[in-house]
Amino acid sequence: MSLFGRSILVHWGDCDPARIVFHPNFIRWMDEGFTEMALARGVDFAALQREDPHFRGAPLVDVRCGFRAPARYGQVVTHEVSPPVLGGRSFRVGHRFLLPDGSLAAEGEQVRIWGREVDGVLRAVAMPAAIAAAFTA
Amino acid sequence: MSLFGRSILVHWGDCDPARIVFHPNFIRWMDEGFTEMALARGVDFAALQREDPHFRGAPLVDVRCGFRAPARYGQVVTHEVSPPVLGGRSFRVGHRFLLPDGSLAAEGEQVRIWGREVDGVLRAVAMPAAIAAAFTA
Amino acid sequence: MSLFGRSILVHWGDCDPARIVFHPNFIRWMDEGFTEMALARGVDFAALQREDPHFRGAPLVDVRCGFRAPARYGQVVTHEVSPPVLGGRSFRVGHRFLLPDGSLAAEGEQVRIWGREVDGVLRAVAMPAAIAAAFTA
Amino acid sequence: MSLFGRSILVHWGDCDPARIVFHPNFIRWMDEGFTEMALARGVDFAALQREDPHFRGAPLVDVRCGFRAPARYGQVVTHEVSPPVLGGRSFRVGHRFLLPDGSLAAEGEQVRIWGREVDGVLRAVAMPAAIAAAFTA
Repeated sequence: MSLFGRSILVHWGDCDPARIVFHPNFIRWMDEGFTEMALARGVDFAALQREDPHFRGAPLVDVRCGFRAPARYGQVVTHEVSPPVLGGRSFRVGHRFLLPDGSLAAEGEQVRIWGREVDGVLRAVAMPAAIAAAFTA
Repeated sequence: MSLFGRSILVHWGDCDPARIVFHPNFIRWMDEGFTEMALARGVDFAALQREDPHFRGAPLVDVRCGFRAPARYGQVVTHEVSPPVLGGRSFRVGHRFLLPDGSLAAEGEQVRIWGREVDGVLRAVAMPAAIAAAFTA
Repeated sequence: MSLFGRSILVHWGDCDPARIVFHPNFIRWMDEGFTEMALARGVDFAALQREDPHFRGAPLVDVRCGFRAPARYGQVVTHEVSPPVLGGRSFRVGHRFLLPDGSLAAEGEQVRIWGREVDGVLRAVAMPAAIAAAFTA
Repeated sequence: MSLFGRSILVHWGDCDPARIVFHPNFIRWMDEGFTEMALARGVDFAALQREDPHFRGAPLVDVRCGFRAPARYGQVVTHEVSPPVLGGRSFRVGHRFLLPDGSLAAEGEQVRIWGREVDGVLRAVAMPAAIAAAFTA
């Protein structure tokens, strides 16, 4: 079980008048990082939705994020996404954002479900074994 | 034919490190303002899409915006949306953003079509007469 | 101590391909709602920063949000902001987002500090008594 | 004079309920692409602002974008940024966004100035010769 990492260049428009990343962008980056981690492990949500029109992806149930040090305009932030931790009907995905000197800018966690529409209603269903294996390999 | 006006409070997260509105937000506000102008004239895109599953709203074909003076954090900007001007298969919607002192922050224009899916392809169709009448009343 | 309420029209661009609000927008709305609640109680961050160049606003330290039911394109969501709860060097602000039928779409909490730059470093300082009184009146 | 190219993965949150990129994101991507093109040619705006506190970057004066074909969730879009074309007190930067099959999704143009604060007012100043040379090399 290994971390997935990606680099994010902090753009002008990501920052607020304090010249630091406006915090909702970290929440957006967590969503994007989850998708990129999944893709890197062969889990392609766009393709899964084309194959099964009732599949609803991995809707977010809860999110939290703590902000420890500012990430500034022009910096390259390293975003680490932890392998999903499965538990009951949901799974947890941890995120860390590191500054160029290796210190922590922000860390957070998503709680997601595997979503499928059943009789017109979104349900949390069991993650297919092949997906779970891919995520935690 | 009258202007539609609305007020926008410039929020911290709308601004960049220069403490002024990050320009793509004006493009977003133009989209929101068009929708609110339409709603105020009885044209409810969400309802129209529920009634006609092939209706695709008013997709944007072209947009331009000129930035004349900075809009700053904490200011209330007045957004004026002009009545749509119909021409052929598209229509034009003008936008002006005014600072508290009445001076111009930005002005732009959208070119939109009335979109309907025909045989699986998005087409520009004639705007229904009742909609055109509502827009230009 | 009363709730502050505001209405949010869910715009097309706030929604994702599932036709529901893309979740980071709730985090952005929590930030905007805090500012509007403060303004409504006479606490104007833009003015405070003009008066004291070392004042750094109310930086966010932690945020969490739970998503209970989807908010959809075209709906008007009621955003309730609770009065800040002070504790030590930080304060907590609760948020609830209600659908038109009164059911809960999302609820969350921000942990913020009162920030001032001291010797070039951002510090959590005591919230001025007048501000605390205004917030909790 | 060569094109600068970069790849953009279209994320879930970049798309609207039509499952296509919400158009203001193209305007944001044009801003980001200009910055990345500049960086690739050795023009680092963050560093320039640290060196000259009166330098105000390259503020946008006008922008336009035409949308020719939808870019969809999960696609990788190629973003081509043209070398700046200098003229008088401003310069023009062309942008093209190509779908995986090479067809055009969107194309647009930015008009920017080289901005410097003179006596407290933002002015369009001549672009330094070394910068102009780097941009158009």
